[in-house]
This record gives sequence, structure tokens and C-alpha cells, in this order.
Amino acid sequence: MSSQGESVDSGQPGAGAGGHSAATLYEAAGLECACRPGLRPSWAGARIAGLAYPVAGIGGDNLALHHAVAHAPAGHVLVADLQGAAHGYWGEILTVAAQQRGLLGLVIDGGVRDIAELAALGFPVFASSVTVLGTGKEHQGRLGQPIALRGVRVSTGDLIVADVDGVVVLPAAEAAAIIRRADRRLQHEKQIITGLRAGRTTVQLYGLPDRDTQVDAEQAW
Amino acid sequence: MSSQGESVDSGQPGAGAGGHSAATLYEAAGLECACRPGLRPSWAGARIAGLAYPVAGIGGDNLALHHAVAHAPAGHVLVADLQGAAHGYWGEILTVAAQQRGLLGLVIDGGVRDIAELAALGFPVFASSVTVLGTGKEHQGRLGQPIALRGVRVSTGDLIVADVDGVVVLPAAEAAAIIRRADRRLQHEKQIITGLRAGRTTVQLYGLPDRDTQVDAEQAW
Amino acid sequence: MSSQGESVDSGQPGAGAGGHSAATLYEAAGLECACRPGLRPSWAGARIAGLAYPVAGIGGDNLALHHAVAHAPAGHVLVADLQGAAHGYWGEILTVAAQQRGLLGLVIDGGVRDIAELAALGFPVFASSVTVLGTGKEHQGRLGQPIALRGVRVSTGDLIVADVDGVVVLPAAEAAAIIRRADRRLQHEKQIITGLRAGRTTVQLYGLPDRDTQVDAEQAW
Repeated sequence: MSSQGESVDSGQPGAGAGGHSAATLYEAAGLECACRPGLRPSWAGARIAGLAYPVAGIGGDNLALHHAVAHAPAGHVLVADLQGAAHGYWGEILTVAAQQRGLLGLVIDGGVRDIAELAALGFPVFASSVTVLGTGKEHQGRLGQPIALRGVRVSTGDLIVADVDGVVVLPAAEAAAIIRRADRRLQHEKQIITGLRAGRTTVQLYGLPDRDTQVDAEQAW
Repeated sequence: MSSQGESVDSGQPGAGAGGHSAATLYEAAGLECACRPGLRPSWAGARIAGLAYPVAGIGGDNLALHHAVAHAPAGHVLVADLQGAAHGYWGEILTVAAQQRGLLGLVIDGGVRDIAELAALGFPVFASSVTVLGTGKEHQGRLGQPIALRGVRVSTGDLIVADVDGVVVLPAAEAAAIIRRADRRLQHEKQIITGLRAGRTTVQLYGLPDRDTQVDAEQAW
Repeated sequence: MSSQGESVDSGQPGAGAGGHSAATLYEAAGLECACRPGLRPSWAGARIAGLAYPVAGIGGDNLALHHAVAHAPAGHVLVADLQGAAHGYWGEILTVAAQQRGLLGLVIDGGVRDIAELAALGFPVFASSVTVLGTGKEHQGRLGQPIALRGVRVSTGDLIVADVDGVVVLPAAEAAAIIRRADRRLQHEKQIITGLRAGRTTVQLYGLPDRDTQVDAEQAW
């Protein structure tokens, strides 16, 4: 649940997702759209919401990322599968290049470096490792074509939202409907919280199964 | 070693443990009371000290936590074994419900979500993973009965202390004596520090074995 | 790339490495001098740059560290191989002792505790785990002799630099030349950034292989 509820695009980071958190959008989606855990924000407070531009590279080589920065449409987020290998594929130079081209952030199954500089530049990055280990520049990789990012398919134009809880990918055709459901969900959660503050329990408010205390007392396990 | 030394209950967080850190209490306990590493604070500065209320659940299902929030005695800390499985068992709604019931925090071998909201609400949570991945609500689990939390037995009323160094569990019958020993330990550590600042070494102050420099020079390893 | 460029020793932390980041020095070195990932700063902003004093210990025993603090030359950084085992080898007491002796920091393949106190004391520590788990004091270990730290050889007097990106070890005989190359590298990176801000791409500025768009469209993978 996000503290902001508006679904209008205001030009602020995260506006593209109606201000909703990854967790709220995941719940509203009802899809297996959450990447496996382990993609962590490179600096405290980093957050991404924008249209995905997928990049598939070879572990240990970052030529694909150089080309992706040059080719990706402005306003997009690079979503890169570097085979999870721990190399420093991305740092200050590529960040300046990406900002210059109007890109919004990077989600990468692989490593990054220059963390302090990324924070200073305010460029949000989510990565599976942090390391200075060097990379080659030989493999062109594949740009703009569907990839699987830690278990979730990502195509150009899908909505990708990343925050401290994790990374979710909303299919382009369903993103608008998901955001509307997230808006309604947020209203419902506010009502639940009002009910909790009035002294009711989540068991009551969600109509969860009552506890069978006899089972609790008797069962072996 | 904690910077606070008083063992009086002042109503402040951590007061129940005399203000002592997990590390100092572990040393004073002389017991295998430290949970295996990997339970991390969900936000910077989170700290828990209070009486445990154990919850055993099935990986991927959070019904037991909903019932635990409704049943646990006020002033207690939920200590939950969700089999270490990485699902988002706990978030903003359960936090509001727990605060409403006067619960002090959550330690969970499993995943949590809504990290930013937990920090904003000031509810301390220690978890083994962070993820939005969804949960079922079918298994009642077991409430208030002993569990093993990452290698350490936890019963209702045991004193659980969690900080950035880790999580320790003090058996109810021994907690008061351990806190008294921690008080004395803290005094002793202050004397050691005074000795260090006067130019002595830890080898001298603790009476550690002297270094056999001949061995050092000759041994193959 | 570091935001500071001067290579003069100013007596500030990090001065010994000309103010350069671990990442920049790694690039300038052209050596396999980066430790495998997983040595993390114990508190936000911790940074180390200084001459290494190697310590080899037995997993679960910290006697070697007590002797190392007593024997290491002032102005050095302890670089300790505790076999990667997760025990709390180092805490507040050893930190006060180390500061008293003029030591600059600790890099350890093993665990540490008293994280909050280390931050308060401003003593930089990089470790592979955080835990209160206790240690014996029986094994003298080996002091001042070469070790391998997560894949990289470290000898007394090597320059060790640790920051949020990782830990690098520069051989003593080559450190000065590496720092000079890092200075030049920094100048070159400033030119690259100027070029990027003028609208050029990293592909152009680094002369990277152009993208073969035909291959991109046709290749199966």
C-alpha cells in the first residue's frame, strides 16, 4: 500500500504507476508479475516506475548496455538480464549517458559499481550484486526483445515498478486496468485501517476463517 | 556492549532488556541463545526487546499471523517461524492491526513487504527476506507454543532482543539473572576501555595467551 | 570514478589512495586485484584506504585479532582471513584498542558485532557477515604474512582500499604508479562526461563496435 493514491501522471518519479508501490500493484494485478527476490535498490530511497526497454546480455560483457543506452527510447527504463553474473556492468559514465538520453533507471540481474556516484546523480538502479569486477565489450546482446527477468517475462512497453519491496512487471495491455484496481484497492485498505483503528481485527474485516481452538489444543503438530 | 547501562524498565523500547544490546546479553547469557545470522532489521535503527509470543506457520500462508495478531497478549513480540520461505507474510495492514493491539514488534523467519510503510509507522520488524510474493490464508498454524527460530527454542514469555547485530532469546526463568550479569559485564567493559585508553592491550587486560613468536617465525602454516 | 581527484596525501581518510574510489583504482590497476563480492561496509559511509597488515586466523577463534591489534604498525589496516566463518570476531572493545594503537580500519572475511558502536566510534569495518556468535581464544594464527582475501593475495604494505563498491588490493610496488594512472583516468573520464553532455554516445566516445542491426533482426537468439 502506498501513501500516495492519485493515479494521474504528474511527471514525478513513480507517476507512471499512479504513485502505487510495487506491493500494491502486485496485489492488484493478480498475476505472477513479481521478480524473484534479490534485486536491491543501489541507494536508499531509489524507486523506479516507467516503461521497460529489455536488454539481454552475456554474463561478463557490457557492450549490450552501451548500445542500449544509445538506442532506448527516452522515458524508458532499461531492464537488463546479464545472466545474474556478478560483474560491474554499469557505473557513473553509463549513468550520465543514460540521463543525457532521458532514460529513467536501470533494473539489472547482474552487478553494478559507483554506487555513491549513482546516489549523487539521483539515478535509480536495482541490481542483484555490487562489484567492481571488469567486463568485456564484445557481445552485442539483444535489444528491445522479450526477456525473462528473474522469472518474469518483460517486453518493450511493459510497466516496470521497483521499490524497496521488490520489482514487478505489468504487461502493457493490462497496466491501465491494474492501476485502476490498485486505486480501488487503496481505498479499500483505507477502510480496513479505519476498521482496525476502531478495534476490529483483520480476521473480522477480511472474513478470514475463525480459529478452531480445539484443534489448536489437541493437534500433535 | 550497549551505551546505556541501566536495567530499570523505563517504558522505552528495549527497556525490557535493561537497555542492553543483543551482543551483550548473548555474552552474559553463556547460552546458545543467538539465532543463526540472516534476520535483518527492515529499517535502519529498528530494535526490539520484549516478551516472545511464538507463531508457527506453513511456508506461503499467513493465516496464522492474522490470528496471532488477534490473540497475542499486549506488550508481546510476535516471533514467527514461516519455514524461512520467501513470501510477503506481513505488511502495512497487519502492522496497524498489531500496533492497535499493543504488540511491540515482529521477528520472522520468512519474508515481509511494505518496508517503507513499516519504517514510517515505527514498527520494528526483523525478517529473513523482503518480497511482495503473495500468501494463502488456509493454515491456522500454531500459536503460543514453543518453536525453533533459526536454531534457538522460543517459548511464550521468553525475552527476545533484536538489533542490528542479530536476535537473541533469553529463557524466561533466566532473563532477570542474565540482565544482572549484563549490567556487571558492562561495568567490566568500561574498566577494560579505561585500561585500553591508558595504553594497555586486550592481551594484558584479559590475560590472553602471549604470542609465541618462535612458533610464528618457524611454523609452515 | 571518484569525485575527488587529487593524489596528495592530506591526512584525510582515503588520502593514501589519492582520494580514488575502489572502482577507479581497480580499472587503473589492470590487475585481478578485486576481492570477490560480499565484504560489506558495517555502516553507511564507511571507507578505508591504507597499508595492509594481514592476519590469518582459524574460523571461530579471535586470539589472532587480539595479538594483531597489539602488534600491527600504526597507520595500518588489519586485513583478516577468518576462513569466512560467521562468528563475532570483532566488536567495540577491539575497536577502542585498535583506535588507541592508531590503526585505520578492518577488512575481514568473517563476522563482526557491535555495528552501532563501530559507527558511533567512526571506525570503518568491512566484513562478510554480522553476528554475535562467540569465539574461542586458543589459536595464535599468523600475523604480517601474506594471505589470500577472497581470491586476492595481500602482503604487509600493500595498499587496501574499501568502499561501498568493494575491496581492492594494490601491490606495494605498483601502488604509486596505479594512483598516477588513476589520476589520468579521472581526467579522461571528465572528458568523456563532457562529451556525453554534448550529446555524443559512449559507443562513439570509446570507439566501441557498432551494432550490426541486421544480425540483431535476424539472429535466433
